[in-house]
Amino acid sequence: MLTPDEINTLTGFADTLADAAARVTLPHFRSGLAVDNKRGDFKFDPVTAADRDAEAAIRALITEHYPTHGIYGEEHGRETGTSENYWVIDPIDGTRSFISGVPLWGTLIALNDGTKPVIGMMDQPYTGERFIGRPGLSELVTRHGRSKLRVSTCTALDNAILGNTDPAMFKTEKERTVFRTLSSEVKLRRFGGDCYFYALLAAGTIDLVVEASLQPYDIQAMIPIIENAGGIVTSWTGGDPQMGGHVVAAATPELHTAAIALLKTAL
Amino acid sequence: MLTPDEINTLTGFADTLADAAARVTLPHFRSGLAVDNKRGDFKFDPVTAADRDAEAAIRALITEHYPTHGIYGEEHGRETGTSENYWVIDPIDGTRSFISGVPLWGTLIALNDGTKPVIGMMDQPYTGERFIGRPGLSELVTRHGRSKLRVSTCTALDNAILGNTDPAMFKTEKERTVFRTLSSEVKLRRFGGDCYFYALLAAGTIDLVVEASLQPYDIQAMIPIIENAGGIVTSWTGGDPQMGGHVVAAATPELHTAAIALLKTAL
Repeated sequence: MLTPDEINTLTGFADTLADAAARVTLPHFRSGLAVDNKRGDFKFDPVTAADRDAEAAIRALITEHYPTHGIYGEEHGRETGTSENYWVIDPIDGTRSFISGVPLWGTLIALNDGTKPVIGMMDQPYTGERFIGRPGLSELVTRHGRSKLRVSTCTALDNAILGNTDPAMFKTEKERTVFRTLSSEVKLRRFGGDCYFYALLAAGTIDLVVEASLQPYDIQAMIPIIENAGGIVTSWTGGDPQMGGHVVAAATPELHTAAIALLKTAL
Repeated sequence: MLTPDEINTLTGFADTLADAAARVTLPHFRSGLAVDNKRGDFKFDPVTAADRDAEAAIRALITEHYPTHGIYGEEHGRETGTSENYWVIDPIDGTRSFISGVPLWGTLIALNDGTKPVIGMMDQPYTGERFIGRPGLSELVTRHGRSKLRVSTCTALDNAILGNTDPAMFKTEKERTVFRTLSSEVKLRRFGGDCYFYALLAAGTIDLVVEASLQPYDIQAMIPIIENAGGIVTSWTGGDPQMGGHVVAAATPELHTAAIALLKTAL
């Protein structure tokens, strides 16, 4: 159990990590850099030099300042530490937005205390937005100042804005069917968000995010941001979302219940 | 035919119009404002007070400084002037991004000389990006400075990044079929861009944009930005795109020809 003082210090250290990542990623954004293909899951899932080098920069800082902490990152895998605390990082979540020049990608940094992510950060250095969640407080920090994040009051599907990165992430016909049904029941559906849509859910402008095929590093940083803004994030069956897979985030318990009722039928 | 001096002056005036629109729109962005429903074309096409008030602010400035010019705007319709020059404006293109808190909407301002749009501006005040096209020059202006826009060198569909606002804009089965075919042939497809994807085509990070159901004010501002960055924008049959409808924009003649070969079969 981390103390409030430790939370403060570690949140400040997460800022240092995000700053270090931004120094690597930002010069490559819209620079026409070469990309290469990593996984076969999606048709095109590029990893850039920026992605790998940003994670290396983050890992070097953690190893220097918290040598006992474990690290779990997208690019360079898992290192177990002697402490129960470990960092879960995705240097560029939304690589397809990144290579398309769309500023909806983010650097994701979570500190997991061995039971769950307790500090989460999503940094978008091009727009200058940093979303930070920690026990009792979610904030958006920009060059204009700090503002508290609070989810919307939306309780009904037919009044909800639904976000999803790409329907291609749904692998089974049942998944695709429930997503189509959900899409037809909401007020508005938006694609292409990656981490940015979870951040907007915390900010109150998107009400529901439904995804599948997530990795732990795709979601762990977003969990403290959503929960400490008053939102709910679980698996499609209402379980712990920290290992990724099928994830649903909702602004209110009523909206979450309505979404789960539909989503669980696909599993 | 406008002189280079007139182009300079009118481009500066377009800056004034974009600044005036931003003062109206920006305070409403992510503010949780009420929205209402305007058209039946899409399931949900909201128009905000910001949209209407920003257009009113633009119209007032044009009437004051160029009383002979005509005005064609999304919100308040068409006013014919005594000059052949007229302004084509969409105060918030991408209202669905706007209400979702996604900073991919833009204020679109075009000056049409009676034959075609010759000055085009797309302003995104939240990210602080202003894309400007005029004879011989397309630029992106940010708080960090000015940079020249140049399209990519992509010549083949299988190496192209394709942008589209929402496949729901395709109304016929033939349109949907060719778009699915095109999507399967490109390297990567992105949704949710509105005007922002045309701007990124001019910036060289998106190679192809394919859309339908456009209004003149959805595309006129983007035409000078794309063309003066070296790109091509036409109807799906290769004709003049300024009246909207079916529009294709491409980085190179080769890519444009490949896209047209497929798209024209849908009409």
